[in-house]
Amino acid sequence: MPQPPSPKAAHAPTPTPTGRSIIEGAFVEAGESVSRAAFRALNPATGTPTGPECFAATPAEIDRAARAAERDARAYASLPREKRAAFLGRIADEILALGEALPALAAAETGLPASPRLASERDRAVLQLRSMAHAVREGAWAEPILDHADPDRKPIPRPDLRRVLVPLGPVAVFGAGNFPIAYSTAGTDTASALAAGCPVVVKGHPGHPGTGELVAQAVTDAAVATGMPTGVFAFLHAGGARENHVGAELVRHPAVAAVGFTGSHAGGMALARLAADRPVPIPVFAEMGSVNPVFLLPAALSRDPVGLAERLFASATASAGQMCTCPGLFFLARGDGADAFLKALASLFHRAEPMVMLSPRVRALYASTLASLAKAKGVEVRAGAAEQPEPRPGSPVTASPALLRTTLAAFEADPALARECFGPAALAVVCDRPDDLLHAASIIPGSLTATIISASPDGALALGLRDLLIPRAGRLISNGVPTGVEVAPAMVHGGPYPATNRPDASAVGPTAIRRWTRPVCFQNFPDELLPHELKDANPLNLARSEDAVYTPPRPSR
Amino acid sequence: MPQPPSPKAAHAPTPTPTGRSIIEGAFVEAGESVSRAAFRALNPATGTPTGPECFAATPAEIDRAARAAERDARAYASLPREKRAAFLGRIADEILALGEALPALAAAETGLPASPRLASERDRAVLQLRSMAHAVREGAWAEPILDHADPDRKPIPRPDLRRVLVPLGPVAVFGAGNFPIAYSTAGTDTASALAAGCPVVVKGHPGHPGTGELVAQAVTDAAVATGMPTGVFAFLHAGGARENHVGAELVRHPAVAAVGFTGSHAGGMALARLAADRPVPIPVFAEMGSVNPVFLLPAALSRDPVGLAERLFASATASAGQMCTCPGLFFLARGDGADAFLKALASLFHRAEPMVMLSPRVRALYASTLASLAKAKGVEVRAGAAEQPEPRPGSPVTASPALLRTTLAAFEADPALARECFGPAALAVVCDRPDDLLHAASIIPGSLTATIISASPDGALALGLRDLLIPRAGRLISNGVPTGVEVAPAMVHGGPYPATNRPDASAVGPTAIRRWTRPVCFQNFPDELLPHELKDANPLNLARSEDAVYTPPRPSR
Repeated sequence: MPQPPSPKAAHAPTPTPTGRSIIEGAFVEAGESVSRAAFRALNPATGTPTGPECFAATPAEIDRAARAAERDARAYASLPREKRAAFLGRIADEILALGEALPALAAAETGLPASPRLASERDRAVLQLRSMAHAVREGAWAEPILDHADPDRKPIPRPDLRRVLVPLGPVAVFGAGNFPIAYSTAGTDTASALAAGCPVVVKGHPGHPGTGELVAQAVTDAAVATGMPTGVFAFLHAGGARENHVGAELVRHPAVAAVGFTGSHAGGMALARLAADRPVPIPVFAEMGSVNPVFLLPAALSRDPVGLAERLFASATASAGQMCTCPGLFFLARGDGADAFLKALASLFHRAEPMVMLSPRVRALYASTLASLAKAKGVEVRAGAAEQPEPRPGSPVTASPALLRTTLAAFEADPALARECFGPAALAVVCDRPDDLLHAASIIPGSLTATIISASPDGALALGLRDLLIPRAGRLISNGVPTGVEVAPAMVHGGPYPATNRPDASAVGPTAIRRWTRPVCFQNFPDELLPHELKDANPLNLARSEDAVYTPPRPSR
Repeated sequence: MPQPPSPKAAHAPTPTPTGRSIIEGAFVEAGESVSRAAFRALNPATGTPTGPECFAATPAEIDRAARAAERDARAYASLPREKRAAFLGRIADEILALGEALPALAAAETGLPASPRLASERDRAVLQLRSMAHAVREGAWAEPILDHADPDRKPIPRPDLRRVLVPLGPVAVFGAGNFPIAYSTAGTDTASALAAGCPVVVKGHPGHPGTGELVAQAVTDAAVATGMPTGVFAFLHAGGARENHVGAELVRHPAVAAVGFTGSHAGGMALARLAADRPVPIPVFAEMGSVNPVFLLPAALSRDPVGLAERLFASATASAGQMCTCPGLFFLARGDGADAFLKALASLFHRAEPMVMLSPRVRALYASTLASLAKAKGVEVRAGAAEQPEPRPGSPVTASPALLRTTLAAFEADPALARECFGPAALAVVCDRPDDLLHAASIIPGSLTATIISASPDGALALGLRDLLIPRAGRLISNGVPTGVEVAPAMVHGGPYPATNRPDASAVGPTAIRRWTRPVCFQNFPDELLPHELKDANPLNLARSEDAVYTPPRPSR
């Protein structure tokens, strides 16, 4: 039997995608895969196919990847945390070592600009991996809590109790189409799951199979270089006739313990239902898009209507409006400031060139959503075109920005107006009075973000909005734009349904690790049988809660 | 319109249940309710009805309770935490003020002994409420995290980010039948939800409606005494023809934001499905029972087989085996120690008197589960009777303890043998060799607890078992019994499916508060618009993470 090529050999000196899945550290053999329909990526900037033929993973390959992950889960979880951190850090290094080939390939598959857009997304992915490595080294994510025994307590002695978070096991990761690096193969879900001590099996995104595989090669190289068990990571191509099957089979596999998903509402909820219907249900953390309302208050609007229009236009149309945090709804009250703002905003939308969209599917959904919004009662097209002509095959996949406008009454009468329109469109909802903004805030759906643009005289209204928006968004922004998700401990990238199905979680920042864990308590365990995190001597030198008192780590040296 | 009586007036000087639900601080009128089939509690110790006619809540009453909770959710969440803590503390006081009438009534409705069993359960409920009050005062549950801005960071400035946990909104609580005080109306779910800042609507348990209502009166009195908004708490009787409807209508109500449930697997999963199918899905935290395996290692067995048998018999049959942590499976390897242990255990089971069960329904389920276990291939009845005669109507609802025995091969061949048998039965699984215990540990279902009984010479085997049991239990006990759930920060009362549907949560201890919250991040908010938990001056004097450094509260005085 011929040896399958190793990913390392395959991409040295110039990394190239092969179209094959990577399981247990090696490309899968062509044999079984090629009997299935293959698929290719499309370059939306040209409308032509790009990259090699890719072969969707077979059921047997999915089973092998999941079983290898299960087999190696305990070995991986038991590694000294320094080794796990080194693995994460090495993934970052390997991704950087791909050089500009990575953003270039991602650009060819997504139509997003290689620079600065995808280069900075690559840098973000590197930052995420390094910050997860830092979190692993520091160890506080495991939240150790110790309550010592009290043998003299009456009526019965108090037992010794020690609790720590443990990894759940193999995690299936479904990356996003709109962030092919930072929310995909080695994006925030993969980084946080590996940080938690969970092996990862990635379902490749059909929109950027080459980018996904290239990053998977980097992860695999890092795993080899740092001595990880081979089951720690696998990458499964998915597309063509088996696009949905690969994901469904992975989520149903008994070895898979949890799922991370970034994508459409329909996709996320379908996976959540699949996971709930398993003999042993598993958690799905699905981030599913968001309308990201912006509330523009009168004093702020009067002060700088044109500057606000420029900043919000840039945010609404960044990456052709294909970011989960792009603002899609602007609420404002009639007045001179509002008029000036809308005039400036309309002018920007009007002058904007057609934009390359991620894929024909994304473009078609944008076109149909926009058309139905524009036809809704009480909605007028303020700038741009509601009808988006379908590009001919073999020509660029583009769409034009559009600004719609409606009244609060019309907005309230038709819940479809609060739906996300993924692409470079926004809907301005003009209210009669400033206080109507409070009512507007009380009827918006759950969102990743909500933004309040205010100046000092708007203070009371801003406070009222804050209280109404807290239950409806994961992150509230004051006088800024919602795009740009900082990687930081206080970040919440999540939010109430339908933005996510798990509003208790964040997909970004070190709290994202907690998603892939559960607590375990050890009662009256002798020291030699306790996990290292909980031993008396604190050999890992973790910050711990001991008898309800925060106990910092010993200072180094 | 006549004023409905206030609960206070109704139960002074001697508290008595009325059979009416309590909504917005007052008993509901008889009018609509009495047109529906009423129900009464049954005293299982006598087999005769006890207490007043009770009236299941109507759809209109459920709607009123849920809307009142929604209306007052923000006001309650915004109260100074000292007021919220005072409310929780006052509930504890009011429950104590009910005196021995409470355990006496609970005994009449459940057949559990008033003393010490139910009196100590009452004391546990009081401890839970006071420890939640303490957690509210201390405030660390809100997990505030601050990351300060860095305007000089390149390429873009770093924003100011501040994150805190906020309450979800109205919580529906479904109490347990087997802990009518500590896991019911004002039990750990209610206490933790109120601590989080969530109003609570309790679906009364049909097995102990009087106990539930009496405690609800105490909660209502506490709410009045401490000036809470009237929507903060409601109690809905459920039973008779509407037993399941009340719960289903409550879970489907759009104002309800989360559900806490303790009870059967079928009940918990039915609620979880209902909640997932809502237009806006909500989380359900269901604790659904558990087999609680015990692994007895050879050296420990040889050392004290009779003492172990006595302790484990007491744990397995405590409260007639009707505790979620009662051990139901004993794994041990052939040998003299095992023989002596099983002989002593069988003798204890053999000599045990019939025990009063919670209800005819619980008894019937015990009888049928036991009978099917006893008939399974490879299972023998070692002590007690597999056939449990049905008591005649009007006579005590009793059942007899039983000890079954099987081999590991038979256990593995029939997954039904790993099912919980709720009641005073246990199954001993005899393995050929000590190392077979490792295989046994790898095939047990998820459980609230797992127990390892070992002595020093068993060390390596105990360590191996520990690693296999970590993924399968929420709490691991060394050389003790699983019954007895300490109220402490390190407690984990939860565990992998099917023991719960949310293995990431604990139902006991201050971490239980987190279930009813979600994080919100504030980006670049001016200090005056920040919640108190996150203001620069730290006016609530909370422990906070600031720029990834733990910042303790200022010492008091």
